Amino acid sequence: MEKITSKDNKKVKEAAKLLSKGTADSFLIEGHHLVEMAAQSGKLLYYFATAEQPYSVPGYLVGEDIIKKLSSSVHPEPIVGVAKLSINRPLQGKRVLLLDRIQDPGNLGTLLRSALSFGFYDVIALEGTCSYFNPKAIQSSQGAIFSLNLLRLSEADALALLKERGYPLFGTSLDRASPLEGFVFPDKFALGLGNEGKGMAKSILEQTDTNIKISMAGIDSLNVGVAGGILMHYAAYLNGKDKNL
Amino acid sequence: MEKITSKDNKKVKEAAKLLSKGTADSFLIEGHHLVEMAAQSGKLLYYFATAEQPYSVPGYLVGEDIIKKLSSSVHPEPIVGVAKLSINRPLQGKRVLLLDRIQDPGNLGTLLRSALSFGFYDVIALEGTCSYFNPKAIQSSQGAIFSLNLLRLSEADALALLKERGYPLFGTSLDRASPLEGFVFPDKFALGLGNEGKGMAKSILEQTDTNIKISMAGIDSLNVGVAGGILMHYAAYLNGKDKNL
Repeated sequence: MEKITSKDNKKVKEAAKLLSKGTADSFLIEGHHLVEMAAQSGKLLYYFATAEQPYSVPGYLVGEDIIKKLSSSVHPEPIVGVAKLSINRPLQGKRVLLLDRIQDPGNLGTLLRSALSFGFYDVIALEGTCSYFNPKAIQSSQGAIFSLNLLRLSEADALALLKERGYPLFGTSLDRASPLEGFVFPDKFALGLGNEGKGMAKSILEQTDTNIKISMAGIDSLNVGVAGGILMHYAAYLNGKDKNL
Repeated sequence: MEKITSKDNKKVKEAAKLLSKGTADSFLIEGHHLVEMAAQSGKLLYYFATAEQPYSVPGYLVGEDIIKKLSSSVHPEPIVGVAKLSINRPLQGKRVLLLDRIQDPGNLGTLLRSALSFGFYDVIALEGTCSYFNPKAIQSSQGAIFSLNLLRLSEADALALLKERGYPLFGTSLDRASPLEGFVFPDKFALGLGNEGKGMAKSILEQTDTNIKISMAGIDSLNVGVAGGILMHYAAYLNGKDKNL
């Protein structure tokens, strides 16, 4: 394991840039859990750690100062990795999650974690959505990012792709929408979620098959990560099996 | 409206302390939406703003530097208020949310927002749970904090109160738990959610009526805010109406 002592080392500086500008080709992951998940799926390129690790890719022995420089956490675990992923591969599953300008990296990561839990293996982020490779998004995804098929497309390309591949799109909206409870999703479909403040773009909502709302009272909206979790869980495990709902 | 220009003004310093140590008697709220909700419910004590506001409580005219000093946001709205709330009042509703050492203020706030949406008007935070009055928790609650009945109790006191008042407690756990789908909650009950990393304390899980788990695959846990949303929505609007689930 090569030892690095200077924060100005070329490899450290290269990795530090990824804190704000990670891409599919190289992005930062923090902590033992994520580095191990990346290594297991062959996505780990190299890593920095304060002690020897069992991974076969290049590893650099560093001090806590360099770990802190490469981490977005206040109290980081003593390991940071750089990983890569393939994005924009063909749609693979029956359920697609479409994200329209989700801004908060924590919400994005939470949605990816729920997408994996509920069998939405394909995720399309429209332009304007927070980067998949934001360190906070990856952290909140708890590693789900390594098991999903991630796409990033323009609105026009995404809608064309879903149409061409035969995925009806269900939007989420508070206006002119059917209640979720009792709704029956087909076997193959895409579910759309929109921006934290503004919801889904009108231009998309006009092209959906049906728009859906979650019943609630006392307050007029849910956190988008919570809304997405309720919708995906419903589609995966409930899905209007009771016609009396 | 009294004008304050110095960051060292006594009133400013008094409010700044609440950024880390808000209590039920005085806590900070940021932005027009929250300040208005506090004012409407008679919970606003005073406020700082860069322009005149329509509230009847004392207001202080300040510059952006003072707003920034009193805010936990990078780009704060030009108004910050100080509010108060009564806590530990008697249980009022039929559904109680019990929070066992939820650590992240964003998760706490999101859970409060969902609790209001799904009619869980009484929330009990056990000791070890993040403060209700953490500015990030209040922000994530989107003002739900002003419409809920909030309690903070020891584990022993909370369990005794629920028993005495006749609320059966349903815990959440991955082990020895019944699947949520098809479960029928009674009319009156308490739902427990646990710490992000460790789940609910064993000592509580042993005293619950039944423990419940959300069905999922591919990953072994959900974000606690998402799990809480799915459970509360289910109890409020689905609740095993289909006996075939």
